[in-house]
Amino acid sequence: MMRPPLHASPSMYSLNVRDHFMIAHSFRGEVFGPAQRLHGATYVVDTTFRRAELDGDGLVVDIGLAGNVLRATLDAMNYRNLDDEPAFAGRNTTTEFLARDIYERILEAVRAGELGEGARGLASICVTLNESHVAWGSYEGPV
Amino acid sequence: MMRPPLHASPSMYSLNVRDHFMIAHSFRGEVFGPAQRLHGATYVVDTTFRRAELDGDGLVVDIGLAGNVLRATLDAMNYRNLDDEPAFAGRNTTTEFLARDIYERILEAVRAGELGEGARGLASICVTLNESHVAWGSYEGPV
Amino acid sequence: MMRPPLHASPSMYSLNVRDHFMIAHSFRGEVFGPAQRLHGATYVVDTTFRRAELDGDGLVVDIGLAGNVLRATLDAMNYRNLDDEPAFAGRNTTTEFLARDIYERILEAVRAGELGEGARGLASICVTLNESHVAWGSYEGPV
Amino acid sequence: MMRPPLHASPSMYSLNVRDHFMIAHSFRGEVFGPAQRLHGATYVVDTTFRRAELDGDGLVVDIGLAGNVLRATLDAMNYRNLDDEPAFAGRNTTTEFLARDIYERILEAVRAGELGEGARGLASICVTLNESHVAWGSYEGPV
Amino acid sequence: MMRPPLHASPSMYSLNVRDHFMIAHSFRGEVFGPAQRLHGATYVVDTTFRRAELDGDGLVVDIGLAGNVLRATLDAMNYRNLDDEPAFAGRNTTTEFLARDIYERILEAVRAGELGEGARGLASICVTLNESHVAWGSYEGPV
Amino acid sequence: MMRPPLHASPSMYSLNVRDHFMIAHSFRGEVFGPAQRLHGATYVVDTTFRRAELDGDGLVVDIGLAGNVLRATLDAMNYRNLDDEPAFAGRNTTTEFLARDIYERILEAVRAGELGEGARGLASICVTLNESHVAWGSYEGPV
Repeated sequence: MMRPPLHASPSMYSLNVRDHFMIAHSFRGEVFGPAQRLHGATYVVDTTFRRAELDGDGLVVDIGLAGNVLRATLDAMNYRNLDDEPAFAGRNTTTEFLARDIYERILEAVRAGELGEGARGLASICVTLNESHVAWGSYEGPV
Repeated sequence: MMRPPLHASPSMYSLNVRDHFMIAHSFRGEVFGPAQRLHGATYVVDTTFRRAELDGDGLVVDIGLAGNVLRATLDAMNYRNLDDEPAFAGRNTTTEFLARDIYERILEAVRAGELGEGARGLASICVTLNESHVAWGSYEGPV
Repeated sequence: MMRPPLHASPSMYSLNVRDHFMIAHSFRGEVFGPAQRLHGATYVVDTTFRRAELDGDGLVVDIGLAGNVLRATLDAMNYRNLDDEPAFAGRNTTTEFLARDIYERILEAVRAGELGEGARGLASICVTLNESHVAWGSYEGPV
Repeated sequence: MMRPPLHASPSMYSLNVRDHFMIAHSFRGEVFGPAQRLHGATYVVDTTFRRAELDGDGLVVDIGLAGNVLRATLDAMNYRNLDDEPAFAGRNTTTEFLARDIYERILEAVRAGELGEGARGLASICVTLNESHVAWGSYEGPV
Repeated sequence: MMRPPLHASPSMYSLNVRDHFMIAHSFRGEVFGPAQRLHGATYVVDTTFRRAELDGDGLVVDIGLAGNVLRATLDAMNYRNLDDEPAFAGRNTTTEFLARDIYERILEAVRAGELGEGARGLASICVTLNESHVAWGSYEGPV
Repeated sequence: MMRPPLHASPSMYSLNVRDHFMIAHSFRGEVFGPAQRLHGATYVVDTTFRRAELDGDGLVVDIGLAGNVLRATLDAMNYRNLDDEPAFAGRNTTTEFLARDIYERILEAVRAGELGEGARGLASICVTLNESHVAWGSYEGPV
């Protein structure tokens, strides 16, 4: 039986757009030390769209629509205290948690057709939140 | 039957070299909006070589040869209007399209032995074109 | 008579906003070598506003208005072939030349009140065009 | 009378160390729009020390002491809501305001000898707060 | 029989911490050209931890412990001539070789519990050594 | 009597080219701590040329010649142990010391006409050595 070898290198195109948002939040749990206090962060967000073949226009995704969807997604959280957001009640809004949350919101936009019909051919989306010059977190999942 | 789990993490070395080129082009299709006009771009190109085991010198690839091949590959397009290049006739030279085109050219150089005999052991090559501080496109494929 | 020493370090606040534009152009003159051909560039533009004292809101300039003025200034050139722009007829639109051109356009916006009344207190503006990962040009002049 | 020409280029050495802190805050004034809500920021801080001549060890400043003083200065604000800090009562803790505040704190450390005796020969200090990939603010003042 | 397709996009969280070290070394082998002479490098090290699900605190790994382990790992090599280190006798300490060496040291720390009990759930670790603005090498392997 | 105010903002063009070199060295003096041991560094070098007016081609300096002179200057030190270089005998080759040394070498090239006749109109040159993601040193002096 033929199986892809462990090191198989599937072919894949990627396209990334970047934007940012700024929030306040605090964490619960001793592991967080001083970050249990109310503080905040700038998150510079990279959203990477992947697919095996380009669409008819030679694109992974319409970069204009992708930028608009990312901006709208971040605006829903921008300039807010995440501790007060009902959607995050009882959750630690860590960098990696927020990366997945934004992935889910963009995935929903893809399914709602907000990135165009071609975006339904996407293989996966990776969302990376750069929180400083020394740390970032990300989540990648399928479309 | 044993199968690698979905989340298998194969071991892999990577080595990246960076260079750039500057071109003019235009796109066809309403999806491109104002980019249908003749404009241009600086592409800062990352070329990442991957393999499971290092060669006898402890290398993924000879970084000097890799840099030379990348420079020669980009020089063939540098300071040109891609709309006038026969190789691209009738194609939209989008960032992701060009990433694959450069991948194909470097793959050809690998097969021609221009990166040394050791480079035949490469598993894959990923070419990323950074087009601004907020956008990039890439293509990764096997060797 | 008291004079500021050669190494005087005047106090100064600065605020920077970044955006980008993508153009085609060509240069005239043997010094430009292959850049005499029609090619293009992405320019990532840093616009730095400077003043000795903050305004009443604790600001160098309203960052929202500054971003809007920068975006509008770049849109007037974005996705264009600068060789066809009457404003640049007979000029080499080098990185350093364009840096001054954008400085002049933003200065005009400051004088027209588009950055708010407070912006009239600015001391100088510096415009930097990053054209690749290895080269940039800038122009700084008074307000 | 001899005067330094307008374009005089005094000789100057600079040395920069970088670190970061993460805070919550809000702004007062309609000019701030949605930033009047409680939000937050990561500030990546560059502290640049300048002087005309190196000290006896060939240094602008002891980079180890400089890093320690910067870290201690930022720790006094790190993981806090600046709206609750008595030192900032009634002030908008804008990026440019905070740049000066940190400059003042580091200047005080220089005067207290915390950067070593050699640091008394510094000409100026510039503090830059990078708040995202598109915006930064700074303050430079004499020592 | 069901098999994951070649382009399967498994879900995965990642968290990265960055630090650096500075060493001297030389290489043996004609392929290295002038790098056969004693020279040196600054390596800016990105350590990326990956896992399929977050731990109970909403984390990939305790970022404080991760930073400490990375710092301790790099301190064991920092400010040294690697040609004199018994651990590297007879080896070319290339960027990609060192990436794997650091991966092995961090893996050992994970197994020793130095990154906390939760870190035992990690799927893989990727170590990237950025050696200049144009080159980097990395190694990724399983936990 | 008219005098330029303390905050005068003279007009100035700048152009920067970037390259890098990799060296070994050690420092003498207790202030250097572990850096007294033989170690090394990658220096990513920014060379900034400044002048009040552009030359006849619309340039600060011929960027091709500038890049060649920078490359040749760095090659004279690249892949070397600076402790063995007679030119640096008895000196601590700190980042800021090397910045001035490279400034002097480039200034000499300007005076020898290696950057073209137009380069004699330069006002100043600033050389910055980026030694890591958190530290850099520079020297600026007149032409």
